[in-house]
Amino acid sequence: MKDTAPHEDRGFDPEPSVRRAARALYEETRGLPIISPHGHVDPHLLADNEPFPDPASLIVTPDHYILRMLYAHGIPLESLGVATREDAVVETDPRAIWQRFAEHAFLFLATPTGAWLDHELREVFGIRERLDGDSAGRVYDEITARLAAPEFLPRALFERFGIEALATTDRASDALEHHRDIRRSGWKGRVIPTFRPDAAFQIAAPGWRAELDALARAGGAPIGTYDEFVRALEQRRRYFRELGATATDHGVLEPFTEPLSPADAERLFQQALVGGATAADQRRFEGQLLLEMARLSTADGLVMQIHPGALRNHSRMVFDRFGPDRGGDIPIATEFTRNLRPLLNAYGNDPRLTLVLFTLDESTYSRELAPLAGHYPAVRLGAPWWFHDSMQGMMRFRERTTETAGIYKTAGFTDDTRAFCSIPARHDLSRRIDANFLGGLVARHVIGMDDARRMARALAYDLAKQTYKL
Amino acid sequence: MKDTAPHEDRGFDPEPSVRRAARALYEETRGLPIISPHGHVDPHLLADNEPFPDPASLIVTPDHYILRMLYAHGIPLESLGVATREDAVVETDPRAIWQRFAEHAFLFLATPTGAWLDHELREVFGIRERLDGDSAGRVYDEITARLAAPEFLPRALFERFGIEALATTDRASDALEHHRDIRRSGWKGRVIPTFRPDAAFQIAAPGWRAELDALARAGGAPIGTYDEFVRALEQRRRYFRELGATATDHGVLEPFTEPLSPADAERLFQQALVGGATAADQRRFEGQLLLEMARLSTADGLVMQIHPGALRNHSRMVFDRFGPDRGGDIPIATEFTRNLRPLLNAYGNDPRLTLVLFTLDESTYSRELAPLAGHYPAVRLGAPWWFHDSMQGMMRFRERTTETAGIYKTAGFTDDTRAFCSIPARHDLSRRIDANFLGGLVARHVIGMDDARRMARALAYDLAKQTYKL
Amino acid sequence: MKDTAPHEDRGFDPEPSVRRAARALYEETRGLPIISPHGHVDPHLLADNEPFPDPASLIVTPDHYILRMLYAHGIPLESLGVATREDAVVETDPRAIWQRFAEHAFLFLATPTGAWLDHELREVFGIRERLDGDSAGRVYDEITARLAAPEFLPRALFERFGIEALATTDRASDALEHHRDIRRSGWKGRVIPTFRPDAAFQIAAPGWRAELDALARAGGAPIGTYDEFVRALEQRRRYFRELGATATDHGVLEPFTEPLSPADAERLFQQALVGGATAADQRRFEGQLLLEMARLSTADGLVMQIHPGALRNHSRMVFDRFGPDRGGDIPIATEFTRNLRPLLNAYGNDPRLTLVLFTLDESTYSRELAPLAGHYPAVRLGAPWWFHDSMQGMMRFRERTTETAGIYKTAGFTDDTRAFCSIPARHDLSRRIDANFLGGLVARHVIGMDDARRMARALAYDLAKQTYKL
Repeated sequence: MKDTAPHEDRGFDPEPSVRRAARALYEETRGLPIISPHGHVDPHLLADNEPFPDPASLIVTPDHYILRMLYAHGIPLESLGVATREDAVVETDPRAIWQRFAEHAFLFLATPTGAWLDHELREVFGIRERLDGDSAGRVYDEITARLAAPEFLPRALFERFGIEALATTDRASDALEHHRDIRRSGWKGRVIPTFRPDAAFQIAAPGWRAELDALARAGGAPIGTYDEFVRALEQRRRYFRELGATATDHGVLEPFTEPLSPADAERLFQQALVGGATAADQRRFEGQLLLEMARLSTADGLVMQIHPGALRNHSRMVFDRFGPDRGGDIPIATEFTRNLRPLLNAYGNDPRLTLVLFTLDESTYSRELAPLAGHYPAVRLGAPWWFHDSMQGMMRFRERTTETAGIYKTAGFTDDTRAFCSIPARHDLSRRIDANFLGGLVARHVIGMDDARRMARALAYDLAKQTYKL
Repeated sequence: MKDTAPHEDRGFDPEPSVRRAARALYEETRGLPIISPHGHVDPHLLADNEPFPDPASLIVTPDHYILRMLYAHGIPLESLGVATREDAVVETDPRAIWQRFAEHAFLFLATPTGAWLDHELREVFGIRERLDGDSAGRVYDEITARLAAPEFLPRALFERFGIEALATTDRASDALEHHRDIRRSGWKGRVIPTFRPDAAFQIAAPGWRAELDALARAGGAPIGTYDEFVRALEQRRRYFRELGATATDHGVLEPFTEPLSPADAERLFQQALVGGATAADQRRFEGQLLLEMARLSTADGLVMQIHPGALRNHSRMVFDRFGPDRGGDIPIATEFTRNLRPLLNAYGNDPRLTLVLFTLDESTYSRELAPLAGHYPAVRLGAPWWFHDSMQGMMRFRERTTETAGIYKTAGFTDDTRAFCSIPARHDLSRRIDANFLGGLVARHVIGMDDARRMARALAYDLAKQTYKL
Repeated sequence: MKDTAPHEDRGFDPEPSVRRAARALYEETRGLPIISPHGHVDPHLLADNEPFPDPASLIVTPDHYILRMLYAHGIPLESLGVATREDAVVETDPRAIWQRFAEHAFLFLATPTGAWLDHELREVFGIRERLDGDSAGRVYDEITARLAAPEFLPRALFERFGIEALATTDRASDALEHHRDIRRSGWKGRVIPTFRPDAAFQIAAPGWRAELDALARAGGAPIGTYDEFVRALEQRRRYFRELGATATDHGVLEPFTEPLSPADAERLFQQALVGGATAADQRRFEGQLLLEMARLSTADGLVMQIHPGALRNHSRMVFDRFGPDRGGDIPIATEFTRNLRPLLNAYGNDPRLTLVLFTLDESTYSRELAPLAGHYPAVRLGAPWWFHDSMQGMMRFRERTTETAGIYKTAGFTDDTRAFCSIPARHDLSRRIDANFLGGLVARHVIGMDDARRMARALAYDLAKQTYKL
């Protein structure tokens, strides 16, 4: 067995002066607490604090990065244990799933998934051999043994990972029972919800009416008009804030904003109630609601996040058979300058608003996002997201935004993950790449080492904490 | 005379650890056979195996990369011997054309054309001095002397270049006489056609009716209905396959796909027959036919290639005077996510389909293409194409696709050239850049050297062979 | 006090072979005269040759790069002394403004503004300490002392900066009084106007009618018809040429061109005269006028520049309160291939036209602009502009255009600045980055050092001089 520890200098430019600076900067940030202001960890994990069941359901099945790549190489999702909507027969043996994954681990070479996995196996689980078809069984057994130990319970890991704050993502109608349980339990870990009302805004989606009803139940008041709808949202925001929320999040296809007249808003809402809303209606409705959300944020202080540009469930077959979040979402070109103008003209100069913008369209970094952040006081740039939180992706983000917006209008790192045990790996990679970016600036004599130290700390910790008011 | 051999390390990053790794990886791939699965070499060359006439008509006149740059600097195409449609007087002295080219060779500094030319002159023709106005005559004489020798006949070069398979590009109505001649000749070189039915799909183009008639003649059956049209295409695909074809290719302005009802397809076809099809009609017709092609590929196994995004014959003056392929095509922004959704939903999950996607719009690499390839089993990413098969262009392709799709969903290198003698130079440059890309990953400790070796071989040889079933 | 001179090697890649080549190339260009063919320096400065008033109004208040970043961090423009349209109370103490700026100087770390500022303070004003809240007062006093000296008068600085030619930007109706004064003064500095008729083209803008009247007054003839309008423009071009102009410039939202029939042009013009033109009308009118301008350029030889893609005054609040050019302009995605086709088909092959294209949308570099410049004789690529004249931005420009268009279809550097004292800093940074780009090619053995020297000189001096006929 060959010890295949991830190299201490991974991710750093090999040129000695860059590497030296990058190393020194990384040394200052690697041990900082983790601020995770946006992600998809199931709060149930930390509420119940039960042991993770097995390596496959811990690492493989919930990770759409892994599923999508395996599926793209012709491996059926059923054989990876992904449940179908119609309860077809799927693989249930976690060891077989793990073996299948391990045999294809080479597909993740040079991808962030591969880098995170290596880090996670080594640093979280102490695995010292490389995962492949041959080692799969041994690695499986090692992880299984670890998972049984108390120091691998979710809360123990949370503490060991040095997580200072972890935000989950939750529907507007969510009762936040797990968050309440965590609070009631007396455990000191800071786990907070994020208000994500997408389902309540998607008036053309089949599930909208059910979500509206859930919202009404959650708020304890019927919702029959647009005004009642907005009041319900306002009330839910208050509830989320009581449980620690500091932010909202909005996933939209386009970041379109445009005010509707009260009459038009009401008309759209009534049309939706009778099931008659089209995709175009939804776009207008969402465009109005983003404005409402910005307005409410100026009042209640919740940081507003927009995550646009993913065409969800592009693959109908995968969606119909397996449901959402199985790797079948594909980005589209995204326009911010015109789309956000109404919102920014209304609230972008208001010191009470913080608006964090994310994108899947890297061509907007230098063209639209950095100029917007470099002008409007409210705007901050979210971390490179989803397909782009990779080594090259993070470098591109810094290279394309820093010269126009500086680093102090960016919002720190966002791991955005469902995969709890990958959190340290993701933050570590981000800290490495930011150190490497700054190290390159030092080596090119663009900034000095003292400045770089302050900037590294800001990127790794301060900016996320400030931006998200944590 | 100063010996100006291209440097042995050209294209490699100067940082010693990257260069060392890149060199080692390149050593493993430089001698591998050439798989050329997509290009525009005239099969006539290899069927007749006659000597190339002279340096100008070998190197200058057929190369639209060279013509476009010289033209862009005000050199009339007539003075380069490019025939006009109306038989105007053009330069006929190849030595004069060569001289003109040589005097402007400095314009190609830092371009791939310059790099290919240096390689070709040195490695194919053994020229040891740099081409410029002063050396032009001597270089001309040296090449001319070589061309007379039997080892410079096309087939001898084919073998010396180590070409394992070479695909040409051919109209649907092409009788493939040259391919038949090659087969009949007993020569063992593998030269195969590619089914490219663009002319038969372009119902708004003036030449469509003539192509349809040629298709009917080739198939030996009249084509009076849409169904007969599709059957004729199916029959021609069979014929191409008999002569070794493994792939189809489709050049469209947009990769738009959308099924037509049988009635609508028939109506469009009848409208085209009477000469009444518009550009919008053609778009819909092509959108339907791409679906037909994908369907047929699932049956006959031909790999489907889409090359979208070139606005052909942008310069009407150049087109009217000199015809197509003279450097006057300009790319446009291209959308894949929505346009390909119907095709991918119908066939993208089908293990029998291989769909290779090319682009001229680099902003789609990370935004659309890598995510599509990283999800749909059918999709492979074609090599950086045309304006982008350059050093920086190939690096950008790898940097923007690998982290999402890995390298194993890419299709290997495609030289895409008419210029037969430049084939080794183009593959060599590609192998260098891929070695350099992987060498950079090794030096940054993202992958190990053993992995890198396997990956280098895959990029240089295996992936093209597998993807195109060669 | 720590001496914080900008490092001699700033901007150069740290890899020793690149740095060595970059240094050597930069040594050849750093002392070349400055050609500034496009900028916004107020000619009044050089006509009057009065001392600059104080550090704040010299460096802070006129620089929208500085204003936008400070504003983006919540610093009111009023507190920086920016006058409001309604004469609200603003900060009038230049020392207080300077202090505020200095306290936030860290925001400009790793931005071009920061790099220019360091260079300007050191090289122009001899400041030896770093600007921050602590040093602000001392630096203020030092600059103030310098400004009183005769060698800091604008003309003395012009000469010390080594400016060979400086073009300003002027309305079509401008009487060019300051330019006349400069000529009359006998001073030998070459300061020339640029014909920028935007305001006369924007028929949907509130100020259009006033500009038309000014144009008529300037031309000494009434303008009642479209033909009279074009004749007035033609006459003004003549006037500008008499005062040394060699170029026109056109800021449009889109580079849309499409000929109007004479009747349609007249109808639009008459509609505008009665105040009834819409944004769509203006687009068509501008599309026609760009064609008129290209036509006139083929006759009078003025180089034509197009600067598209900025959505001006995105922030209505900032515009309404402070007027234009305060940092509230945001780029949009820009299309060149289709939009410019009519113009290029009409005049792009004409050897008498030079058309310099700029962009704020970097995705067009390799997709559209380099292919256009690599085909049409008339087209040259303007320098990376505005948000993109930064270290990384300039590298991206070279990396994305050189391989398709070569360097000899680019137009040299354009500082595009209002901030007179930053001119040397901007040209210096550009020369450094071009040297670094070429040094990288040398180190990768793509070009030789002799070629690189010629190319460095071309980029720093020759190309601007040739392109702009200076």
